[in-house]
Amino acid sequence: MDDIRFAVLGTGGIGRRTLEVSQHKDGLTAVAACDRNGVAIDHSGLDVDELLEATEGNIASGPEDASGTTPATPADDYASDGGAAAVEGGGGGVKQHGEQAGIVASSQGEPTETPIDDIIAESDAIDAVLLALPNLEHDFIPRVAERFAGADYEGVMIDVLKRSRVIGMLDDREDLLKESGITFVCGAGATPGFLTGAAALAAQSFVEVEEVEIWWGVGLKSGYEDNRGTVREDIAHLDGYDIETAREMSEAEIEALIDEHDGVLEFHDMEHADDVLLERAGICDADDVHVGGVLDVRSDEKPTTTTVSVTGTTFDGETGTNTFELDDATSMEANVNGPALGYLKAGVRNNRAGHYGVFGPADLMPGF
Amino acid sequence: MDDIRFAVLGTGGIGRRTLEVSQHKDGLTAVAACDRNGVAIDHSGLDVDELLEATEGNIASGPEDASGTTPATPADDYASDGGAAAVEGGGGGVKQHGEQAGIVASSQGEPTETPIDDIIAESDAIDAVLLALPNLEHDFIPRVAERFAGADYEGVMIDVLKRSRVIGMLDDREDLLKESGITFVCGAGATPGFLTGAAALAAQSFVEVEEVEIWWGVGLKSGYEDNRGTVREDIAHLDGYDIETAREMSEAEIEALIDEHDGVLEFHDMEHADDVLLERAGICDADDVHVGGVLDVRSDEKPTTTTVSVTGTTFDGETGTNTFELDDATSMEANVNGPALGYLKAGVRNNRAGHYGVFGPADLMPGF
Repeated sequence: MDDIRFAVLGTGGIGRRTLEVSQHKDGLTAVAACDRNGVAIDHSGLDVDELLEATEGNIASGPEDASGTTPATPADDYASDGGAAAVEGGGGGVKQHGEQAGIVASSQGEPTETPIDDIIAESDAIDAVLLALPNLEHDFIPRVAERFAGADYEGVMIDVLKRSRVIGMLDDREDLLKESGITFVCGAGATPGFLTGAAALAAQSFVEVEEVEIWWGVGLKSGYEDNRGTVREDIAHLDGYDIETAREMSEAEIEALIDEHDGVLEFHDMEHADDVLLERAGICDADDVHVGGVLDVRSDEKPTTTTVSVTGTTFDGETGTNTFELDDATSMEANVNGPALGYLKAGVRNNRAGHYGVFGPADLMPGF
Repeated sequence: MDDIRFAVLGTGGIGRRTLEVSQHKDGLTAVAACDRNGVAIDHSGLDVDELLEATEGNIASGPEDASGTTPATPADDYASDGGAAAVEGGGGGVKQHGEQAGIVASSQGEPTETPIDDIIAESDAIDAVLLALPNLEHDFIPRVAERFAGADYEGVMIDVLKRSRVIGMLDDREDLLKESGITFVCGAGATPGFLTGAAALAAQSFVEVEEVEIWWGVGLKSGYEDNRGTVREDIAHLDGYDIETAREMSEAEIEALIDEHDGVLEFHDMEHADDVLLERAGICDADDVHVGGVLDVRSDEKPTTTTVSVTGTTFDGETGTNTFELDDATSMEANVNGPALGYLKAGVRNNRAGHYGVFGPADLMPGF
């Protein structure tokens, strides 16, 4: 496969780590990145190391933050995992790291009030766009896709979203994406993403899949600052919370909730797009997919082992459960960013072959 | 994806079970099958049930075989897993089940002395061809591919071969395959195949893979008659044996060897194409792939659990081992035939997109 030139929208934790991980492999060239204040574009390849250092400040900070700045409002930290969204996505808070925060602090960065439009303007020379933006409103990422389609972008878009209902919103826009020539790969992080693909693979022993159980463990002590947006999304899955209530919680309320649970939150029957992604690939009914897990924000040890269990019946009438287990030593970050780039490459193969529309991870796997 | 019309060359165990498993899924229509004596072609879809009953006699038999026939020579059983090969592949023995054995016993079958050529003659209306032939000589399957290319076949060919060196022989013919428009998927059974794909998937946590260990367990009591060819191939991997000596063993010698081991054979460092298939997909060096396992021909219980272990280093410097485990209740047959059809479908997607040449299972997986 020829070299892939890709852009990252949002330089919070996921965006920055994707840039970092891409450097470990040949054939992936980062040519553009943006956050809410700025954009960096170099079609011959960004200097990723320089950019990563400059965007460290994008990560939400407490008073002891090395940059010496503090968030302006409690909502800031949530918005921080994808700077562009805070400006363009209608989020309330505006993160303040000073004039030189984020991409504009990079020698490659230019200030802009329209970071996403600036990338779209250059998208003729971009093969794939990773949306590392927080999905502030349900339709935020679908609307970004629409904007690329409106500019006749022909290429791959990929997100790491989690919510089942967003897939339907992308499907609603499938004609638009197809007309433009966009291959949209959705839910392509760890779960949904890596583990969804593993479930699709494990299902191949069976002619009928009865249940898919995805159980994850994340130890996030040193990664907590980097992943506050993700933690807030997870809280929405606790009993008594939803996406709206979680979004409105102050940082102090979140800390109080975490204290109550001694730093360990356990989740069951989460609204995780694995269900619709497996159903659309013909693996099983969405109702037969169960996602849960344990998050420990005070330890880097995983509180439980991440496991995918696929139970089904073989053609010769036996029932069994195949399992896929991630080593506890592999961080959530490693399990998001490698697979995201893997799906990005698979998306580019499909796009170059003229396969446009909306694809989930399991759609990109061999399966019968 | 549109309906896929496929042919099966060889109606021994693997060929027949592939026909059977394909009936569990939509979109797969068996339109042609052959063995050494006959060919059945129906472009509107074969009556698979009828064909399966008729070809039961293709499986090598002892004196108590219901058909009342006995093998003519000890070599017969080995050749039996792909009837066409015994005639066309230069195998010494000719299986004798009487004039009405195999496909010619089916109401859909016609006797022929050129079964493979008969399928080639109809290949314009065939999307994919599964080669369920024993690889009698190393270059037997590559030579069959050549014959399809010689007839300008445009479509998928897929095999379930195991030997590393055959991949190179296919690569040697890649230009020919590309000119014809053939997407050749090689090593697409259980291992290599299912487990190779699992290793490629599991590798995505890591920026560097240090070792892939594939360890399989097969309990083959009731499937022994169906899989004598495979057992003979496995024996070639025991210390002191190779493919040539295993091929020349009489049935009695094989039984004596199995007796010596009380029915349980353990294999280490097998020449299994997983190694070259993972290397060509950029996952790791072939030398870092180790394949072994335990075969018990006297029990249907698996003597050990089939496991793929992938050890690597993450972008953040941790070393870990991800694992994929097949339930002991899933038979070898289930783990060959589902994945083979999955890779067949993935091959067709690629073929229709104009991707021709030689592909391994890991090439068809997302990977970065």
